[in-house]
Amino acid sequence: VSMKKEEPELVIARVSPLNAEAPVRALRSSTTPVSSFFVRSHFAVPRVKLSGWRLSVGGEVDNPRELSYLDLLKMPMKEVSATLECAGNGRAGFAVPAEGELRWGHGAVGNATWTGVPLRAVLGAALPRKGAKEVVFHGADSGVLKGEERALTFSRSLPVEKAMDGDTMIAVKMNGARLTPEHGYPARLVVPGWYGVASVKWLNRIELVSGKPYRAFFNGVKYVYVRGGPGEEISEPVSEMRVKSLITQPSEGDEVDLGRRVEVAGKAWSGGAMVSRVDVDLGDGWRRAELQTSSAGPFEWVGWSIVWTPRKKGEQLIRARATDGRGNVQPLEPEDNRYQYGYNAVSRLRVRVV
Amino acid sequence: VSMKKEEPELVIARVSPLNAEAPVRALRSSTTPVSSFFVRSHFAVPRVKLSGWRLSVGGEVDNPRELSYLDLLKMPMKEVSATLECAGNGRAGFAVPAEGELRWGHGAVGNATWTGVPLRAVLGAALPRKGAKEVVFHGADSGVLKGEERALTFSRSLPVEKAMDGDTMIAVKMNGARLTPEHGYPARLVVPGWYGVASVKWLNRIELVSGKPYRAFFNGVKYVYVRGGPGEEISEPVSEMRVKSLITQPSEGDEVDLGRRVEVAGKAWSGGAMVSRVDVDLGDGWRRAELQTSSAGPFEWVGWSIVWTPRKKGEQLIRARATDGRGNVQPLEPEDNRYQYGYNAVSRLRVRVV
Repeated sequence: VSMKKEEPELVIARVSPLNAEAPVRALRSSTTPVSSFFVRSHFAVPRVKLSGWRLSVGGEVDNPRELSYLDLLKMPMKEVSATLECAGNGRAGFAVPAEGELRWGHGAVGNATWTGVPLRAVLGAALPRKGAKEVVFHGADSGVLKGEERALTFSRSLPVEKAMDGDTMIAVKMNGARLTPEHGYPARLVVPGWYGVASVKWLNRIELVSGKPYRAFFNGVKYVYVRGGPGEEISEPVSEMRVKSLITQPSEGDEVDLGRRVEVAGKAWSGGAMVSRVDVDLGDGWRRAELQTSSAGPFEWVGWSIVWTPRKKGEQLIRARATDGRGNVQPLEPEDNRYQYGYNAVSRLRVRVV
Repeated sequence: VSMKKEEPELVIARVSPLNAEAPVRALRSSTTPVSSFFVRSHFAVPRVKLSGWRLSVGGEVDNPRELSYLDLLKMPMKEVSATLECAGNGRAGFAVPAEGELRWGHGAVGNATWTGVPLRAVLGAALPRKGAKEVVFHGADSGVLKGEERALTFSRSLPVEKAMDGDTMIAVKMNGARLTPEHGYPARLVVPGWYGVASVKWLNRIELVSGKPYRAFFNGVKYVYVRGGPGEEISEPVSEMRVKSLITQPSEGDEVDLGRRVEVAGKAWSGGAMVSRVDVDLGDGWRRAELQTSSAGPFEWVGWSIVWTPRKKGEQLIRARATDGRGNVQPLEPEDNRYQYGYNAVSRLRVRVV
């Protein structure tokens, strides 16, 4: 196989606001370098000054609080390694594009180690009231979206149960270094297991709410699975990442040598459980790949690989299909929904045997 | 205050099977030494030989497995510090004893650091089927209970969502040392946030089940909240620990000096959230105690303290009341249920001011 040099880089999907994904070959390592970690922004990246930054915690609480960055750093920290994927990742795989949506390839996913304060601790100190059902997270990013009349501020909610999970955190570091502006500096939420949209960047306000489900733009209009025709629409906010795999090696269009062993490898992940199995089809039916489960934490993607000796010249389709620990399997075709979220059809790429 | 020497020890509640709780003064440190950690056994402590021990994973899975101890040790480990409390802890606080139930004082609780394999990883490798709803855990302990005709083996279930939680684990170490026989050697489940009964000891079989809710003796007959009269009974298995506090200092019956400052201190915990507030009544209304939140992980109890200068000679009631991060507050009176589980009334003890 003709190996390209692995260099950290990103492929720009849109310049302003900045949206960029990793070239798939940059996702071969277990931990994704920050320089190759996809960036998804809805508005201009806010440049937050530490001195003026505060994180307020309010709403259905008895002890509304305002934390400075220093207050946050004084709290006990933990480290969680977690894979985050954009809910729109793979959208380019749909035959008919959804209008106005970014046509992500397969690189809007990455795995990083996050260091921060368990959200559970921050919420506790604010004395939430018994009726609080959801926790709403507001970012510092705002602006007017195309087709919308008014300026919006980014916000999204979590059910209080998920918010109290031991692994949901307010992160201040990514791979051991301070967050970069693009990744939410100075502090962002990290919700392991959920699509990236839940991990609100540039976090500055937390609000506990009761009553009917919180529906704002980013979990009421966008980032929802909308199904059914006009008048019969059912919409459901995206939450846990669906089971999915990625073939990182060889690359699409590579040439591989007839009769010479080549390693076919990739990553697989799922929000609701660990990946338990990956099958690969190299033209002669599904074969089980080897999983590198032993080096993956509970919310990290799992590396997989299988050895292939090409026996026939010409173009060859390679397919990979992951199964997770709850029995979910990647479907052959993606599930249709209006804005084409949650693409997780069986992974495929083509190489040429020469 | 007349301080007794802090020595690791346990108070025996029943010799056979062994049931013992910590004297409350042994619970002053953040981490409870194994020698002072309560022991709750339903049957004789099984003496498990490592060579013969296997952990099977079966039921609604495509890849039933049998793990040796070595297989388990090869998997990636994590550490979680968690407070475990027996669901019967504090039962002695009910005015009328429930027949046949152990009359625990307030020491059937402890906080330890557990090292083990995330359950999520073990389950994933077994390829659970999509229909699996619950995960059943079987221990090696069995026998005939008083009033029951047939021999029972200890088993209990978790909803698959909680089983897939990143912090639920199969532990092989407690406070850095191999599990002792009484605490489940060679491997036990640890379910942070839930009453101790969920953390099945001497684990040797995991079974995924579908269909109607799994109800066996220890989550169908006992360890359930039974409410309502004959024919109208509602029963609900105990799960998350209720919000609760413990006064560890001074001790019941201590003498304290008039006009001399004394530290009143203790612990507080809750399964569904961290404790966010503790109020103490020293005879002149509720005052807010200081919390040592900064040294507690998300599933650990929190230390609290308040300084008191006694102003009146004679007997004095001290009360403590915890509030958790979901707005739950300890009630003044315990909630009644047939077997008196989940006692969490406001903590109280009496001292003598001299």
